[in-house]
Amino acid sequence: MGIDPGLTRCGLSVVQAGRGRQIIPVAVGVVRTPSTAALSERLLRISRAVGEWMDDYQPDVIAMERIFERGNVSTVMHTAHAVGVMVLAAAERDIPVHMYTPSEVKKAVSGNGRADKKQMTTMITRILGLSEAPKPADAADALAIAVCHCWRAPLIARTHQLTVKAANQ
Amino acid sequence: MGIDPGLTRCGLSVVQAGRGRQIIPVAVGVVRTPSTAALSERLLRISRAVGEWMDDYQPDVIAMERIFERGNVSTVMHTAHAVGVMVLAAAERDIPVHMYTPSEVKKAVSGNGRADKKQMTTMITRILGLSEAPKPADAADALAIAVCHCWRAPLIARTHQLTVKAANQ
Repeated sequence: MGIDPGLTRCGLSVVQAGRGRQIIPVAVGVVRTPSTAALSERLLRISRAVGEWMDDYQPDVIAMERIFERGNVSTVMHTAHAVGVMVLAAAERDIPVHMYTPSEVKKAVSGNGRADKKQMTTMITRILGLSEAPKPADAADALAIAVCHCWRAPLIARTHQLTVKAANQ
Repeated sequence: MGIDPGLTRCGLSVVQAGRGRQIIPVAVGVVRTPSTAALSERLLRISRAVGEWMDDYQPDVIAMERIFERGNVSTVMHTAHAVGVMVLAAAERDIPVHMYTPSEVKKAVSGNGRADKKQMTTMITRILGLSEAPKPADAADALAIAVCHCWRAPLIARTHQLTVKAANQ
């Protein structure tokens, strides 16, 4: 399950890793909370929506975009609150969480850590064999994060194995 | 209930507002999570501990210190994740949350928005009629936030009533 975190708009996706580099899209969506609502109300909505996705799709792992710390401080804080709530939802269900920076996601999906939105959308549409580009942008981002994890996870697992092996020698 | 939010150390307090400016201390404590643990594990511990306090003491309201956005970015992010989890715990129990900046808390408790730690501890010890200063510092901060809310809440309620009255006229 891929998550592009946000308080106003949060992109969610579920994919299934196939043979080799094949990835099958399962679900994609966006959870929105009104900026006029109180923070507690918004976090409650995010928590419930994300929890429902986790319960419905029972993902093996969650991949989430790491917060980009520059930019509007208030937006970053709101996103950080939402991330806390979503990491908690995963922890309560014993689902591991992996974080990737925006450039790690771009690099994994397009080969270029500075790819723009258009290039990323084109790549995601092609990789998942979709007939048209996923919309809105947050949904496409959530798919890109999930793809990034599917392709990087075998490498992470292998590195971990080698580290454990080295430590035991 | 007063909360001085943090991921490594989180100060918690419960007080009872008495007549006039009298405030009776009920409980004070600090929840710690090891910095060596994974973020999800730490947020789960914070969520459970804070939830237990809320269930045990059934507070009417939560007062929390608003995050100070300068300083170490990684610490601020961690605190923001913890705040998200604690605001959610309050929302799940339908307990309202009020946020105060550090200087609002200092001003309310000591009359000086720039009071230092020592002055604040002295004031809190005196206000609550304690025989010795509360320890550690996070516990004293959590008490100060609770005191700040007790003293400001009547004013906030009155302003709200006047606003509603004006809107209805």
